[in-house]
Amino acid sequence: MSQAGLRGVAAGQTAICTCGAGGHALHYRGYSIESLAANAVFEEVAWLLTRGELPTSAELESYRKKLRGLRGLPPALRRTLEEIPANAHPMDVIRTGVSALGALEPEGDFSRQTDCADRILAALPGIVGYWSQFTANGNRPQTETEDESLAGQLLRLTTGAAPTAEKLRAMDVSLILYAEHEFNASTFVARVVAATLSDFHSAIVSAIGALRGPLHGGANEAAMALVEQFPNAEAARKGTLERLSRREKIMGFGHAVYTLRDPRSDIIKEQARILSAGHPRAHLLEASEAVEEVMRAEKKLFPNLDFYSASSYHFMGVDTGLFTPIFAVSRTAGWAAHIFEQRADNKLIRPGAEYIGPPEREFIPLEKRG
Amino acid sequence: MSQAGLRGVAAGQTAICTCGAGGHALHYRGYSIESLAANAVFEEVAWLLTRGELPTSAELESYRKKLRGLRGLPPALRRTLEEIPANAHPMDVIRTGVSALGALEPEGDFSRQTDCADRILAALPGIVGYWSQFTANGNRPQTETEDESLAGQLLRLTTGAAPTAEKLRAMDVSLILYAEHEFNASTFVARVVAATLSDFHSAIVSAIGALRGPLHGGANEAAMALVEQFPNAEAARKGTLERLSRREKIMGFGHAVYTLRDPRSDIIKEQARILSAGHPRAHLLEASEAVEEVMRAEKKLFPNLDFYSASSYHFMGVDTGLFTPIFAVSRTAGWAAHIFEQRADNKLIRPGAEYIGPPEREFIPLEKRG
Repeated sequence: MSQAGLRGVAAGQTAICTCGAGGHALHYRGYSIESLAANAVFEEVAWLLTRGELPTSAELESYRKKLRGLRGLPPALRRTLEEIPANAHPMDVIRTGVSALGALEPEGDFSRQTDCADRILAALPGIVGYWSQFTANGNRPQTETEDESLAGQLLRLTTGAAPTAEKLRAMDVSLILYAEHEFNASTFVARVVAATLSDFHSAIVSAIGALRGPLHGGANEAAMALVEQFPNAEAARKGTLERLSRREKIMGFGHAVYTLRDPRSDIIKEQARILSAGHPRAHLLEASEAVEEVMRAEKKLFPNLDFYSASSYHFMGVDTGLFTPIFAVSRTAGWAAHIFEQRADNKLIRPGAEYIGPPEREFIPLEKRG
Repeated sequence: MSQAGLRGVAAGQTAICTCGAGGHALHYRGYSIESLAANAVFEEVAWLLTRGELPTSAELESYRKKLRGLRGLPPALRRTLEEIPANAHPMDVIRTGVSALGALEPEGDFSRQTDCADRILAALPGIVGYWSQFTANGNRPQTETEDESLAGQLLRLTTGAAPTAEKLRAMDVSLILYAEHEFNASTFVARVVAATLSDFHSAIVSAIGALRGPLHGGANEAAMALVEQFPNAEAARKGTLERLSRREKIMGFGHAVYTLRDPRSDIIKEQARILSAGHPRAHLLEASEAVEEVMRAEKKLFPNLDFYSASSYHFMGVDTGLFTPIFAVSRTAGWAAHIFEQRADNKLIRPGAEYIGPPEREFIPLEKRG
């Protein structure tokens, strides 16, 4: 008997994260997601995930400084990004960008793994922003922005503008919420690749490839595509009911590991509410709330992180096509932690399979076939 | 309890391959590896794997013609390859090359998956050959060679010379032997990525990332590094015994799924024997046989496919650094078959984990830390 999907099979041990306890809890290294989102900045959480403990003030300051110093992209990488056309899938761009970075600046030795993780995290906002600005209007933006935080750098490079304090905080919260989620598909892929003792970049590139899938990273984009069709709450209610009656799937609701609620949803919804104040498209929030109301009433389903992330990113001024790349920037912290953990106590991950094909058969020479 | 490495856990069903039955058997879709290696060409086997049945003469002819028509690399991909330095890891090159190809020629829709698989298989020898010739001597080789077979194209582009009949046959046999091996780490990665409904290129790129690891694809290169140190059989015997007494690992022996023998080893050893006749470094075969003899006597271990592949590729004139990329070209046929199979009856692959980290703890504000 095969265990398709490996649902419920513990594929290894981890000290990084638990999700789904009590139907609604999420902890990074023992700290609740609520306490981290309320009190920390993204770099604090990235440090916690990759180093195991919350940083001291001095550690946080030097980590942020290190990341700022790693924002530049080598000329060969910039030229590679310029070869990718404007209509490419943004996840293809960052997959290719990180792969090229690995060819240009190879890890070499596992003793360099922390530097590799920091470099990829610091370079990713530039990879996203450089390509999107170059293909949109021929700009070759300076990826070494003056922003203190990664959230600021990411907002400036993806929106082309200096971020407000509200947007900065909302992006920081969003990055914290998306940073880690145990053995999800992309993280598991990163671990399987790391378990062959392949290099750090290969593991991240593979994880990006998995996150690209609509069953994994693409749900916030699908939620945006739904919500932006509705001019107001009433249209959203009506449109959602119609879609349900046609048995269409509404993206951004329910979750495989949470049974009661996704603890991240209320947190990002509050950010969406703050950002919507005075925004010319504030009706997107009302429309989203109407969709939520219908989904709770009709399907007993709660919104997950992806649902209100959609309107939050939109209010921040980020193009919908960049939602999943931003997810990838954030999750790089979690992927890195899992690669370190896999390497520290490694065993090749090689499952078996249940054979359902033809029994042994005689080879038929080419001239006697068909 | 976690099942680290997922050893013995059936992670899904497959109709493509069985390996290890009786301690020594390997079948692709019911045909023994012995019958395929003795009677088929690589394209026949690639068709069998990806289409499910052996091709008719007409199907084989049109498949080979289709692959020949897909050998050209788009200019943007050639320029991308030119940006990768000569000292890069060749697996980083093909990982980046296939990723860039996916950005330039996206799959778009799963109805195009077969064309995608054929395109990647046909383009890979050119990606390997173009970069290696450009960085070695500034050549920009025509990747659309006149060779009828993929084996011929691959040999011409990696060695820079027209292949002899013996080399052509040896490369064909080698490609057949490496084409498929059930749920090995790289194939499993391709399936996990495909299961998020990500695109075809992401799944192949991720598999390349996994194959790059020394516990997976790199063993034939390690076997070469060992064998080429020995000027003759006596030095090989002595050197192997010395390494064993120092408890060093000898690469290319034993196998997780074969307990009696690797059925592919005798087949590739015969090719190595044919190629060694009159070769100026024929002593590599004698040295290899001496290592085999010592390993059987001292460790009761048999050679696996990687061990005699090393001298075979060397006799074909292929640089050691390109052994694993050639493995990737061949295995692309198997990866493609598994991506098709995963998509045909898909379920997200998302295992659980056993938590061994800290229990829930209170957040400590930054100013109160350390």
